[in-house]
Amino acid sequence: MTLDDCRALDAQDKLAALRAQFTLPAGVIYLDGNSLGVLPKAAPARIAEVVAKEWGEGLIRSWNTAGWFDLPQRLGDKVARLIGAAPGEVVCTDSTSINLYKVLFSALSQQLPTNRRVVVSERSNFPTDLYIAESMCRERGFTLKLIEASELPAVLTEEVAVLMLTHVNYRTGAMHDMKAITAAAHAAGVITVWDLAHSAGAVPVALNDCNADYAIGCGYKYLNGGPGAPAFAWVHARHADKFVQPLSGWWGHAAPFEFTPNYRPASGIARYLCGTQPIVALAGLECGLDTMLAAEAHGGMAALRTKSLALTDLFIQLVEERCAGHGLSLVTPREHADRGSQVCLSRGEGAYAIVQALIARGVIGDYRAGDEQMPDILRFGFTPLYLGFEDVWNSVEHLRQVLETAEWQRAEFNAKNAVT
Amino acid sequence: MTLDDCRALDAQDKLAALRAQFTLPAGVIYLDGNSLGVLPKAAPARIAEVVAKEWGEGLIRSWNTAGWFDLPQRLGDKVARLIGAAPGEVVCTDSTSINLYKVLFSALSQQLPTNRRVVVSERSNFPTDLYIAESMCRERGFTLKLIEASELPAVLTEEVAVLMLTHVNYRTGAMHDMKAITAAAHAAGVITVWDLAHSAGAVPVALNDCNADYAIGCGYKYLNGGPGAPAFAWVHARHADKFVQPLSGWWGHAAPFEFTPNYRPASGIARYLCGTQPIVALAGLECGLDTMLAAEAHGGMAALRTKSLALTDLFIQLVEERCAGHGLSLVTPREHADRGSQVCLSRGEGAYAIVQALIARGVIGDYRAGDEQMPDILRFGFTPLYLGFEDVWNSVEHLRQVLETAEWQRAEFNAKNAVT
Repeated sequence: MTLDDCRALDAQDKLAALRAQFTLPAGVIYLDGNSLGVLPKAAPARIAEVVAKEWGEGLIRSWNTAGWFDLPQRLGDKVARLIGAAPGEVVCTDSTSINLYKVLFSALSQQLPTNRRVVVSERSNFPTDLYIAESMCRERGFTLKLIEASELPAVLTEEVAVLMLTHVNYRTGAMHDMKAITAAAHAAGVITVWDLAHSAGAVPVALNDCNADYAIGCGYKYLNGGPGAPAFAWVHARHADKFVQPLSGWWGHAAPFEFTPNYRPASGIARYLCGTQPIVALAGLECGLDTMLAAEAHGGMAALRTKSLALTDLFIQLVEERCAGHGLSLVTPREHADRGSQVCLSRGEGAYAIVQALIARGVIGDYRAGDEQMPDILRFGFTPLYLGFEDVWNSVEHLRQVLETAEWQRAEFNAKNAVT
Repeated sequence: MTLDDCRALDAQDKLAALRAQFTLPAGVIYLDGNSLGVLPKAAPARIAEVVAKEWGEGLIRSWNTAGWFDLPQRLGDKVARLIGAAPGEVVCTDSTSINLYKVLFSALSQQLPTNRRVVVSERSNFPTDLYIAESMCRERGFTLKLIEASELPAVLTEEVAVLMLTHVNYRTGAMHDMKAITAAAHAAGVITVWDLAHSAGAVPVALNDCNADYAIGCGYKYLNGGPGAPAFAWVHARHADKFVQPLSGWWGHAAPFEFTPNYRPASGIARYLCGTQPIVALAGLECGLDTMLAAEAHGGMAALRTKSLALTDLFIQLVEERCAGHGLSLVTPREHADRGSQVCLSRGEGAYAIVQALIARGVIGDYRAGDEQMPDILRFGFTPLYLGFEDVWNSVEHLRQVLETAEWQRAEFNAKNAVT
């Protein structure tokens, strides 16, 4: 595999034209779209329009004339197309953590009539997901049990109420088999809550086909919605009208404009709304969603997935060929079925410094610290909407040079001795 | 009082120059800043910079280089100057309803060791505040008791855990005496939760001087932060480290970047943060806060209050002089100490149609429906940052013409017979 081979792959790539939808800084190879997505070209003008026209001129009238009230549902319908959900099943609102609180509360409420009082999650799940679950379990008389993925499905005993998993692991890039795990959970009487933060827009997701129960996800990673963009929540239709969530604000009321003193939840997913949403941020999110939906004309998520796997395969192959002997280990699963859209490497030492040296060269990935049980991680996200095969070649070439020239050790030395 | 008198008042008004900070649509007299504030002139350029430079070019690096992580606290310090709080005591984050959930949870936790199991609020409080309290009370074994303001402080018995009030009533414009009520509550062993949605930026608030316990408020009304701008939360220093709130996301963790699996709350107000915040929306909020803080050079909230009372006094006087005989009644208290920065009128019939006819003329107030116990309301907000005395004259003149020409009846007829 050579640079010319990579360029040839780019020339044949029917998705390559999608990159033109984005503004990317010169000199940057951006491998951190799993942390913060890039700027859609349409976003500055659309956001400026919302600010100057809808807010500045329309003022309060824009709640109706500009359709502000419908934004969580209208954008939710766009997200639905990316995660195998139906129109009317998704809302875009609040943060991922807050949406997790809502759906986990509802899932636990379903199990209150049973004796099941354990919530199972992975020890390596997003810390913020574990923090939310920890507080709620303590408050509602449940126990949070943290496991390794290898303990599934054996751990799903008759004590387990909810299995709360992130579909693609943020540290390792490992992906769960949502359909098989959901089936195993249901067979054991367990309700599933899926975090799609590293899945929506990254890998095909088929919530209804998997018969999942609850899902939440992030707007600012693969969906390119902008920093801190609102998140989303999905609830299977069979549960949606049966339980309430406790953040019972007026946007989730059956008749918000009657201003009645008693709460009456809206039917369906609308009851997962709470307070007034940041309209300008929702406008940015819509621009990001539209860049994803533009791929539908080119094969959609299936085509993006094929390219994503080709990019991550290539990255793994080139690292193993060209960076051999430098102590890097592959953390992400090699099997396609087990891999998300990122590649994570570990190294006995220097992971942080290597990432910093790469960033100094314009190759932006990130670092996640390990602990006694998990190694330090160099994390590289591959977003097929705007990355090509030459980008992969160049990023590995930078990594090779950083390792071979010991540039990372100098970077580490400088960091340690910096006057801060 | 004549139009010329009003113009003379504007000419003497030292705060009049503050209006130049805003972009106001031509032909509009905006009396709805208590629902959605207007656009600061600085906001479009600042928001464009955040979008194009900080997001588009800085990408993930902007979390550090652009100070995104500190925004909730940095903006919180600006809000603190408007509500009598100290630096480090306020965060700007999430929605008002969600922040109410957090502080109410914490307040109830304080009372768990006691036998107090009643939350008292006003029947005419914001419905969304009542909805949040209703769910939480049910979940945690408390009872929500709705009262009339006249029942205070007698209703504060030994069963009462928390008194949850909105400082300035959204329907009537009536303002509570925060200091006296807080003192009465404390004397009765009751903790106070104040909603400042119609107070912050509208009237002087002195949380620490009043010895209040918890407060939350809105960013998009008098603070001009933009539609759905993040809200704020304040907790008195004596409580801040003693209790936790249940939306325990990573932004409220003591060490969010250690990514440890167990939740350890940050000290102080930072523990009232939850998930990642909408950065573009926070940038808009900062522009709004800066327009308020610009008044500090001209006497600050005290000077704004003096002007606000002069505006609302004038509106009341002119309505009573020039719209007499048309069945309007004043709902807002006449006493300065009891009045916020709005004037509400009621009428036996036609309130909705009159508001619609005014809006068609460019005089934007709003309508709030009544019920068996409360009349329909015509609501007019007076924001001294960008309204003057001539605006008051002109708005009353429009109201007079709408009433005298029966224009509102034609508007009502058209609305009823419209093909929708």
